[in-house]
Amino acid sequence: MSKGVEWAIHTLLNLAMLGDDKPVGSAQLAAGHGLPVAYHNKQLQSLVKAELLTSTPGPRGGFRLARDPDSISLLDVVLAIEGNGTLFRCTEIRQCGKIGELSTGGDGSTACAVKRAMYRGDVAWREALAAQKLSDVQKELDIDDPSVTTTVRRAFGRD
Amino acid sequence: MSKGVEWAIHTLLNLAMLGDDKPVGSAQLAAGHGLPVAYHNKQLQSLVKAELLTSTPGPRGGFRLARDPDSISLLDVVLAIEGNGTLFRCTEIRQCGKIGELSTGGDGSTACAVKRAMYRGDVAWREALAAQKLSDVQKELDIDDPSVTTTVRRAFGRD
Repeated sequence: MSKGVEWAIHTLLNLAMLGDDKPVGSAQLAAGHGLPVAYHNKQLQSLVKAELLTSTPGPRGGFRLARDPDSISLLDVVLAIEGNGTLFRCTEIRQCGKIGELSTGGDGSTACAVKRAMYRGDVAWREALAAQKLSDVQKELDIDDPSVTTTVRRAFGRD
Repeated sequence: MSKGVEWAIHTLLNLAMLGDDKPVGSAQLAAGHGLPVAYHNKQLQSLVKAELLTSTPGPRGGFRLARDPDSISLLDVVLAIEGNGTLFRCTEIRQCGKIGELSTGGDGSTACAVKRAMYRGDVAWREALAAQKLSDVQKELDIDDPSVTTTVRRAFGRD
């Protein structure tokens, strides 16, 4: 997974902690965690495209959460940044080589048993991420450090 | 995940289907699914290192399963090929930038809540793969195509 996933989750959480509807500029969002602005902008655009952020143009524009933190899952963020690919890559080698040539059984309509088995891993991973919302992680951050929201608000000039 | 994982699982399953202790040469194993020999050899060496295969040198040498198919999990194969890394990459950006500078709470001894949440996905994925043994996948292959073992044995000149 690219490091863009870590960036995106923290950026969304920071916006959740600001807790208002004022847009935040991309340079300010990147500065929150010292991220390279141009590369971070790509993640922001991906989050807009996935409808997790809304973008407001103009000098007072910026980004804000498009949905409540309790309706954005970690899976939503991963898919926004990484696309909808699978962890396991099946290239159908079962159909290739000597074994592929000699194979008589099966009509090829059933997905390979190896693919099915590996995809059970993908499903378990997706379910674990889908079950966790940004609001859940925000609560854990608060428990770890009760001053975290104040810190984030100060970093973005809100207090 | 690299395509080496697909190759390694099929190769291990082919050896399981041969069902004997005769070593199979690397060129023959690669030819089973039309795989590039040199690159496939790297996967074979990784499987030997992980003690999933044993290698016998010499002109009649080759590779055979080091353990019973019911004691080799899909996770064992993935870790052998991909190493023991995590799906999610945490680079501790919480400590960086303006937010990192202003952060006062927490002693840094607790792993970041984002990392903990994402690792729950990793754990679910690993558990799903660890629960599935090569013998389970072999049974599914047999159900899909009852002639699959005969096909594999013929491809390796055993019948």
